[in-house]
Order: sequence, then structure tokens, then C-alpha cells
Amino acid sequence: MLEKEMAVKGIISKGVRYVAGREKIKPETLSEKVAEGRAIILKHKNIYLGIGEGLKTKVNANIGTSPDIADVDSEIEKLKTACKYGADTVMDLSTGGNIDRIRNLVFERSPVPIGTVPIYQAAIESIEEKGALTRMEPDDLFRVIERHASSGVSFTTLHCGVTLRTLERLKKNPRKSMVVSRGGAFLISWMIGNGRENPLYESFDRVIEIAKKYDLVISLGDGMRPGGLADSTDISQIDELLTLGELTKIAWENNVQVIVEGPGHIPINEIPANVVLQKKICKGAPFYVLGPLSTDIAPGYDHITSAIGAAVAGWYGADYICYVTPSEHLSLPGTEDVIEGTIASKIAAHVADIGKGLAGSEDSDYRMDIARTKRAWQEQRKIAIDPGKFDAYYKQHKPSEKDVCTMCGKYCAIKTVERYLGTKVSIK
Amino acid sequence: MLEKEMAVKGIISKGVRYVAGREKIKPETLSEKVAEGRAIILKHKNIYLGIGEGLKTKVNANIGTSPDIADVDSEIEKLKTACKYGADTVMDLSTGGNIDRIRNLVFERSPVPIGTVPIYQAAIESIEEKGALTRMEPDDLFRVIERHASSGVSFTTLHCGVTLRTLERLKKNPRKSMVVSRGGAFLISWMIGNGRENPLYESFDRVIEIAKKYDLVISLGDGMRPGGLADSTDISQIDELLTLGELTKIAWENNVQVIVEGPGHIPINEIPANVVLQKKICKGAPFYVLGPLSTDIAPGYDHITSAIGAAVAGWYGADYICYVTPSEHLSLPGTEDVIEGTIASKIAAHVADIGKGLAGSEDSDYRMDIARTKRAWQEQRKIAIDPGKFDAYYKQHKPSEKDVCTMCGKYCAIKTVERYLGTKVSIK
Repeated sequence: MLEKEMAVKGIISKGVRYVAGREKIKPETLSEKVAEGRAIILKHKNIYLGIGEGLKTKVNANIGTSPDIADVDSEIEKLKTACKYGADTVMDLSTGGNIDRIRNLVFERSPVPIGTVPIYQAAIESIEEKGALTRMEPDDLFRVIERHASSGVSFTTLHCGVTLRTLERLKKNPRKSMVVSRGGAFLISWMIGNGRENPLYESFDRVIEIAKKYDLVISLGDGMRPGGLADSTDISQIDELLTLGELTKIAWENNVQVIVEGPGHIPINEIPANVVLQKKICKGAPFYVLGPLSTDIAPGYDHITSAIGAAVAGWYGADYICYVTPSEHLSLPGTEDVIEGTIASKIAAHVADIGKGLAGSEDSDYRMDIARTKRAWQEQRKIAIDPGKFDAYYKQHKPSEKDVCTMCGKYCAIKTVERYLGTKVSIK
Repeated sequence: MLEKEMAVKGIISKGVRYVAGREKIKPETLSEKVAEGRAIILKHKNIYLGIGEGLKTKVNANIGTSPDIADVDSEIEKLKTACKYGADTVMDLSTGGNIDRIRNLVFERSPVPIGTVPIYQAAIESIEEKGALTRMEPDDLFRVIERHASSGVSFTTLHCGVTLRTLERLKKNPRKSMVVSRGGAFLISWMIGNGRENPLYESFDRVIEIAKKYDLVISLGDGMRPGGLADSTDISQIDELLTLGELTKIAWENNVQVIVEGPGHIPINEIPANVVLQKKICKGAPFYVLGPLSTDIAPGYDHITSAIGAAVAGWYGADYICYVTPSEHLSLPGTEDVIEGTIASKIAAHVADIGKGLAGSEDSDYRMDIARTKRAWQEQRKIAIDPGKFDAYYKQHKPSEKDVCTMCGKYCAIKTVERYLGTKVSIK
């Protein structure tokens, strides 16, 4: 029985029990959310991960080869690194080298659920084997989707909402950055080249069929996501979202679990409206945000521009954050970039959980506050999101008094007032 | 005539004209804001800087020695670095070595307005010369304030709102991190040790007198700012803010310009209320936020936790952001930390300007969007907040096609759709 079907029938599944235990909530509460589509359960080998309302905000790390850099070992290294620093899922977006082999290896080695974007491989195989993207047959695409599903990936991004109607709207309302989604770009090129509707939309029943067969979670991709602030929250973006809302309903009627992808590049003041709109149009389906980047002028620092956007989006209700690394817009990320990207997104997710008022989300902050007051450096190190970085800073200089740091030295504010006010902290 | 007095009398000052030109607004509009206290003008040698309503969000970088690390050359290096990366002001918070000499050197070398915290030096001189902080006389403190003002600093932080009443409230409502403000800690210790009121509050008329003599801008410090999320928006913090509101009014009656300092460590969902409250209680006086840090668990990454907080605070109306470097809570920052901290805060300030709807704030983003669509890499580099970082990423790998990057290589989305949709960008 499908995960969602069990929830709808009031059966507490193994996955729901597993996730509820991890999230410290009642299985019944989670099961209801899964039944309503407000939360989903990803299965990976014998573990489960929940995403959605009432659950901790999750982080995805993208890895994968590109045509120019196709080194399998370094992708496996990135996978391990992302997981070490706390990525909840990993998407293998490989577009170079032996894509099947890389995906299988990533699946095998990954401790977390894996997602993919099958259109990449379908398009590339068509270009390489048939000489042109436009020669791809819908059957080719569906075969690749099934190949991914059968190889154990937990979810796939499918840009089902890019329709001929959306394209008309895009042409009537041109953008500064027309289309920046790779999957969207492949599909749009195919649609224009062939004068045909998007097969993922036209034959959404075939998508559903595969999803049901493998209990594959569909991540409804946003091919029309804005690629710059200039295009944010525009007609094309919202037109696609409306279609994704309609498709969400169809998926749910078939007990297929859905997450909905969202922007992209959005000014901070438009982020709340974007979250409200997605949640409303897609009836509470989990929202998977790609950043969003809150400015376009900081290439090299887009882990920060997107941490700002993701924290705000999460605070307003986004459930799942795709990391952005410092190398975004400039080059394929390396291992160091994966660390920076993962940590920045984990920070944003944690800030979002606090903003959402998730029970217990501030516990680790409070423990840090107490450890700081006690000047208990080893305790601070343990609570720190990156103990290695903690050491690198704390140990680089030696303070003259043992219990302070070199920022203030003997004039440490906490130590100064302690003599006069005592430690009023309730230390457990 | 004092800057504020001229504005009140409807005289367009040289400073107002200078700042209005830089900010591309009408001098009359700015002069009105200065008259109302909603904006202030800092003077430094022959340049001016405006902070407040309707102006670009500004960034301050803290530099300065500590008792453990007192290397003048490295502080001058940090000053230069902060200014190179866009700091609008620099505060010299030196507490080690020859403080007067360092301040004078910083003033001499700085292209931007300088701020200081005189209580540091007054407290340290008392400890060193009289053997105890508590032996400091109010006269000693006021003499140091005047010494700073006369040496050309544009503004000083004065923790005038820490009163005996606030201390009573603090004792009744203990915190996890009692006091983390160094200036606040010195004053509180003095107050408890001597059983006397804070001289900066009790003799606020003397503060005003000095400020009027030198047209010194007072930054009303927040000695009771929360040092962790556990203590955010608590009774002690808000009690001090109320006092700062009262003192703001007195300063304005004397034509003294004021900015008000704010937290600190604040959960993202409490940031809007903090800004609204400050703006309301202090009648629109410019709000100078120290971060705020949106979580406590990421030492080593507090430039990111505070960029998130600062972007949200700025979006809601905060005017002036104090940077936080990755070394915060761990050690005195080095030059690399100054770069990271300054850039993260500049990003937050820019995101905030966009959020505030400041005219023209998205111009550079739009130019970047167009440059990306054109794959005009040199143009992107020029617009980038840090062209050096841009190069480091972009040039680390060579794409096989000249006009793309190695992220997507020949499958670049923009390039893919261009063949089918054309470039609909209006390129000037």
C-alpha cells in the first residue's frame, strides 16, 4: 500500500512511526498531515525522512557532474561531505559522464534520501544518441523517469507545470532572464522545437502511474522560476504555480505524495507572499525553495544571499531548503563549497524552525547561552554547528586568562558582571 | 550652528547637501528628516554621511585592540580592509595598548566617520591607574568622552539607559546571559560597587553639553541587549529602550543628533516587533542594530547568522547595521574576518534596501540579471560585490564553451532557451 494511502486510511505506517520518533511528535498527528498532503515521507533503503508542516525544516544538497567536470570520486566526496555537515537529502544532478553509474553509486553510498531530475538524462541521451534534444520522444523521457524510480531514488523533480499556455504568457511578458531552470529550458526547447505540449503535463497520468508503481515522491519542478530579482513573482512564475496546484490535486487523488518547488531569486519583501501563495494554491503541500536568493549582486557569496532568503521563507512556512553554494553562477561546486553551502542552509533552516515556533527549536541555543555564561568552552564547542570551525577560531590565539577569549580578554563582559551580579543562570 | 539646529531652522547645511547628493534625494527632504531626528548627519574631516529614514542602510565595522592582542599595524590594516569592502563607518573599540594613540591614528587614516565607546578607556584607565574600576569618578568618564570628541570622532556610544531601576528589574528577571555589553558591564559593575546611579544617566546634561560643544552624535548604547535568544525582547531590554526613548527627546530638545543601538541576539520572528518598538518609542530616531544574530549555535559563522537578522531588521526599518565577523564569540577578528564580516553586512544592507523599497536599490541587481542573460562575464564581474572572489570561482575551471560556466557547461539553461526564445531582454 502507498504511504499516502495508508495515512488516508488511518493506518500508522512504519515510515510515519519512524519519522514521528525522530521529530518528537505523535505518529497520529503526522499521519493526519500525510493524509492531507501537508507532509510527506521519503523512504531510502531502511530509513525515512519527513518533510512538511510541523516538522523540522529540511536541507537538500545538490551534487553531480557537469559536462566539463565529470569526476565520480569527487562527487562521492561531496555526497559524504554534505551528509557529514547535516544535509537531509542529496540530489544527484549529474549531466556529465556515465549518469546511470554515478546515480547508482550515489544511491549505494548515501545515508540520506536521493533525488534526481530525469529530464537532464533524457535530454542528454537524446542529444548524444539522436543528435538533437528535439528528437526526444515522450517515451524516452518516461523510460528515464522509470529507470530513476526503479534504481531507488526517493523523489524526482518533474517540471510538469511548464505548458504551452505558460510559454504564451512568457512571450507576452518577457523577462530579463527568460528561463534559468535547466529542466525547464530542456522542456521549453523541446516544446517550441516540436510545437507540442510538455509530455509531463499532457501525460501526467503516466507520471502518476510510475509514481504509484514505486511510491515515488514527485517534486513538482518550477521551470519558470525567476532567475533574477527583475523577474520575481511575475506572471509566468505564478501561472506555472497555478498549474502545479492543479496537478497536486490530481496526484493526491491517486495517493501520490507531492512537494512543490519554488523560487529562485526573490526580493526579501516578496518572500512572505510567495510562501502564502504556494501554500494556498497547493493546499498546504510541502514547499521546497531553491534559496531564494535575496540579491543578485553577490556571486561568490550566494550561500549568504540564499541563507537570508531561506530563513525568511522557512519562517513563513517553507518546509525544505535547497542549498546554494558560494560557487553558484560561477562554477561547479567543490567540496569546500559544499561545506559552506550546507552549513549556511542548516543555519537558515534552524533560524526558520525558531521563527515557526517549532517546539524545542531553541533548546540548543539556550544551552549555548548557558555555556557562554559559564565560559564552558568545551560545552560550546559540542553545541556548535561546526566544532572544527569553532576550534580554528578559538584556538588561533591564547587568551591571558584561561576562561575568556581574545575578543575582550580580561574585560569579558560576562566575567565582569559576574563578580557583581553573580551567576543567575539555572544550570542543569 | 549645530547640524540639527540648522535643519530645524530650515537652513540647508553643507552636510545635508553633500549627503542628499550621494543618496540622490532632495536636500529639502533630507533636511526635514534631520530636523525631525529621523536621519542624522555624521561629519568626518571634510566628508559627510547620512543615516536614517529614506537613506541607504549603512554598515559599521568594528576594529580595535584587545588586552591580549594589541597590534596597531594590524588594526590599521583592518581599517583599510573594512573601508575597501564598503564599510560606511568604523568603530575603534580598542581596549589594549595606547588607546589614545590608536584612536588618533585610526582617525587620521580613516576615509569614513569614526565612532568610539569612551567608557572602555575610562574603565581601563581607572583599573590601571587607580587599581579598580569602582574607583572611577564621573569626572574621569566625562573627561574621556570629551577627549574622544575633541580628537575628531564623529559619534560615541554612551550607555545612558542602564539605570538603577533597570538593574532592579534585571535582578527580578534574571537571564541566561546576564549582561554581554562590555560598556554595560563596566557601568553596572561601577553602579553596584558604588551603590550609585549611572553618571551617563544622572548627568545626562553633561553628556549633552559635550555633544553640543563638538556637534558629536550620540549613539545611545544598549547595555542590556540580550546576549542570547533566551533573553531576547525581555523586560530588562525593553526597560532600557524606554529610557533611551526619554533621553532621545532630551537630546533633540538640545539639537543633539541621536542614534539608538539595539540587539543583539533575537529570533527572526521577534525582529519586526523590535524594530517597530524602537521606532515608536524613540520617535523615529535611526536604529543601529548589532546584528542581530538569529541563532546562537553557529560560532564561526556569525557573519551569516547576523546577516539574516540584519537583512530582516533593515527590511523592517533598521537604518544602520553593525557587522559581525566569523570570529565573534571566539577571538579578536583578523583581516580575513573583517572582509567576511563587511561583505555579509553589505549584502544584508543591500537586501534591506530592496525590502524597504528604496528607489533604485534593485538597479545593480537588474544589471546583473541582464549581464547573466548575455553571459557577459566581465560585466558580471564589474557589478559583483567582490570582483576578486568572482575571479577566484569563475576562473578556477575552464568551461569547454567560452560563454558559459562549468556549473552547467554546454547545457546552460539560458543558452539553451535562447536558441528557441531569443533574447527578449531590453539591453541598454
